[in-house]
Amino acid sequence: MTDALLQQLAARLGPGGLVTDAGDMAGYATDWRRLYQGRPRAVLRPGSTAEVAQAVRLCAQAGVPIVPQGGNTSMVGGATPAGDGTAAILSLERMRGLRAIDPVEMTMTVEAGVTLAAAQAMAAEAGMLLPLSISSEGSAQIGGVLATNAGGNNTLRFGNARDLVLGLEVVLADGQVWDGLRRLHKDNTGYSLRQLFVGSEGTLGIITAAVLRLQPGVSARASAFCALPSVDHALALLARLRRRDAGALYAFEYMSGASVDLVLHHVAGTVLPVEPALHYVLIDYASTGREEARRLLEETLEEVLGEALESGDLLDAALSQNEAQRAAFWRLREEHAEAQKRAGASVKNDISVPLTALPECLAAASEACAAVVPGLCIAPFGHLGDGNIHFNLVQPEGMEGAAFLARSEELMAAVNAVVQRLGGSFSAEHGVGRLKTGLMESWRGGVELALMRRVKAALDPQGIFNPGVIFPPGQGLTGSD
Amino acid sequence: MTDALLQQLAARLGPGGLVTDAGDMAGYATDWRRLYQGRPRAVLRPGSTAEVAQAVRLCAQAGVPIVPQGGNTSMVGGATPAGDGTAAILSLERMRGLRAIDPVEMTMTVEAGVTLAAAQAMAAEAGMLLPLSISSEGSAQIGGVLATNAGGNNTLRFGNARDLVLGLEVVLADGQVWDGLRRLHKDNTGYSLRQLFVGSEGTLGIITAAVLRLQPGVSARASAFCALPSVDHALALLARLRRRDAGALYAFEYMSGASVDLVLHHVAGTVLPVEPALHYVLIDYASTGREEARRLLEETLEEVLGEALESGDLLDAALSQNEAQRAAFWRLREEHAEAQKRAGASVKNDISVPLTALPECLAAASEACAAVVPGLCIAPFGHLGDGNIHFNLVQPEGMEGAAFLARSEELMAAVNAVVQRLGGSFSAEHGVGRLKTGLMESWRGGVELALMRRVKAALDPQGIFNPGVIFPPGQGLTGSD
Repeated sequence: MTDALLQQLAARLGPGGLVTDAGDMAGYATDWRRLYQGRPRAVLRPGSTAEVAQAVRLCAQAGVPIVPQGGNTSMVGGATPAGDGTAAILSLERMRGLRAIDPVEMTMTVEAGVTLAAAQAMAAEAGMLLPLSISSEGSAQIGGVLATNAGGNNTLRFGNARDLVLGLEVVLADGQVWDGLRRLHKDNTGYSLRQLFVGSEGTLGIITAAVLRLQPGVSARASAFCALPSVDHALALLARLRRRDAGALYAFEYMSGASVDLVLHHVAGTVLPVEPALHYVLIDYASTGREEARRLLEETLEEVLGEALESGDLLDAALSQNEAQRAAFWRLREEHAEAQKRAGASVKNDISVPLTALPECLAAASEACAAVVPGLCIAPFGHLGDGNIHFNLVQPEGMEGAAFLARSEELMAAVNAVVQRLGGSFSAEHGVGRLKTGLMESWRGGVELALMRRVKAALDPQGIFNPGVIFPPGQGLTGSD
Repeated sequence: MTDALLQQLAARLGPGGLVTDAGDMAGYATDWRRLYQGRPRAVLRPGSTAEVAQAVRLCAQAGVPIVPQGGNTSMVGGATPAGDGTAAILSLERMRGLRAIDPVEMTMTVEAGVTLAAAQAMAAEAGMLLPLSISSEGSAQIGGVLATNAGGNNTLRFGNARDLVLGLEVVLADGQVWDGLRRLHKDNTGYSLRQLFVGSEGTLGIITAAVLRLQPGVSARASAFCALPSVDHALALLARLRRRDAGALYAFEYMSGASVDLVLHHVAGTVLPVEPALHYVLIDYASTGREEARRLLEETLEEVLGEALESGDLLDAALSQNEAQRAAFWRLREEHAEAQKRAGASVKNDISVPLTALPECLAAASEACAAVVPGLCIAPFGHLGDGNIHFNLVQPEGMEGAAFLARSEELMAAVNAVVQRLGGSFSAEHGVGRLKTGLMESWRGGVELALMRRVKAALDPQGIFNPGVIFPPGQGLTGSD
């Protein structure tokens, strides 16, 4: 990246549009989990789609790689540049406009730099629900959320990020802008380009704005915290809830007993609302109705849980009596990441398998990991309704964190061997990023990876967008630096 | 296509696998609407994925174009070969296997040649719902339904075909097989290739099998047939129904007064259950619950409709009291195509616009068409909840059908001018096929079409899959022959 190019970029992007000071770039240069230390040559902060296009055109002409970055909350180093000092980070954080929102159409058109939480608030203010919720929503930005096809708690009911996108605006690798911001629920006029960009982790284009499909605001909720004898029983309970009112089932979250114990131990003010057990689930029944709808949801949930208790699917259950109780139930679920952090070093596996394989997956992966590091804490939790479990492993008491982390690769390999045998995915929600490129060849290799390479070459022939992400030869935990 | 190649194909595909007799090929060679008369060199009928792969490899080596065909129900000539006698039709009709179905996972794995109706029945037999319903479901096959991203009556609640696909098996242009039959609700490991093949109208690969996401079986339904003063009031009613119970709203179908009149006139045994009006909607509220759920749906619907009547959104409404009445309401909706056929020549426009633009769209398009052919019957109907209207036009009484059809292009242009101005689509559900390639340049031209061409070249560099479909320079109503 020449000084002349930097000057051109500074002129085009205006005040605040270009950062080159190493100190000022530090927050952009490292990933959220601090697995990678990237070394960008500059951070570009365009304020409009036209500025993104100009920046990309200039960089493309000079052959400068671009790493698109949103809230920098990737769990897999998906928005961190290499350590060789050649790349520019392009941050969308200044593009925070709400271009349109409409309660009849139930759509919103937002720019890429709007945080997910802000977008949720915009929808709520207009009486609607943006049905996407992830732990990092306060920082994660719409552009990144779409580029990584984020999942979260309500996927069971409303699908992944991909399912909420009606239209996109994308800056392509040559600096051209594709205006695909259509607000149509049905449109079969050629290939679904938007679905190609969603989930492409910034390797095919830079999403600058999106049309999202909204839902009516939820006004009635009922939650239950349940203790169960096994994961099989959790699947039976899920089927029971769906049979009874599938439209009302907004969340079905799993927590292992070990994982809940970590929360109770490490997070002040948390209380278990049921008898202790090896397995828990948190259920959200919700609807768009009025006050009587809430009572109805509670009654229905109570009935289903009563039947499940009788049949032995459930050991114990607590039904929320008010919003404070609901919040307390959800806090137990949401504090998992924090509790595991406080418990010491941990190894994270974001896996999914076909639902029927879930009990075997958890049992076999637990056994395999205990053989690698005896005494470790196996603390899985996650979105059971989607077959997606965060199969997290926490260091044994008394072991050094670093010593535990030194076994990371072995532990991940042990988990992945089970998941692969059962037809699952090594990355259900988090994407490939830099962290998991090494798995692509053995999991998605051959025909599939060759197809992906052809698509990449067709849309970004120079390979300037997010090099080192998705495609092997990948970089290990330490990146290329 | 040489005799040697035909002999090779005959040997690979076995008895019944190859058809070359012109008479036997006739049913495959013409599209459903009889707009095109194709002239295939042969019809290939492979019985397995391996046979599809072998047939494609042999044809690709010889440079023979392949037109994939399912139930041959395309409205836009999407599965009809050119008239030059060079292409082979590859019919998936012999691949009718149900490979797997599971009520816990709520997925089914079906082969491409299974009809949609048969797949629905397989799901129902296992206590589940395949939530995709289109008029041609008795003939349309899963492969074609996915290749065209079919929509239909329940899109409002469950999305288009694309939203139901978890995995695909696809034969590529060089005869390789991509096995992407994963049964995962979440899987972020690289590009979403399946979403690229869905809706690509057979131009990128041949779908041979798919994993579809199912829903719990619907056990309770309540329907209402409503008379309304305007389309604006229909939108208000839609918003009201969603606010009250969005999860229960399975269908919201629009019928113009003129269109319903055609049904009442031409289809024996149909009766209007409400006072005559200029606009009607048919509502389905449904749930997975038990007997009490049905009563509740009826009560809720009755309340919402009562409020709408009071506020003036509704002129009249009839609530179904039993299954026979429900069926009678739906018959009024489902007989539209048949009634219009009996009423004479018609011009079909499968359009969508943003919901808020719908009233203006219908008014302006009606005015424009009446100026082209005074006295014509403007008979729109369709999936109002998705902004998707079949803006169909029927010949005036006393005019010759051929004379009316001679004005087709003018009428379609008049409708499309309005739709394009309002940010809509010229093909909401039916795809581009051969019929609408001429519109691609002006509607999706420039950056978007260039991207599609790059994707096409990347996946099918020889251009052997379904030439003449999607991409201009297109062929007019008469095809290339």
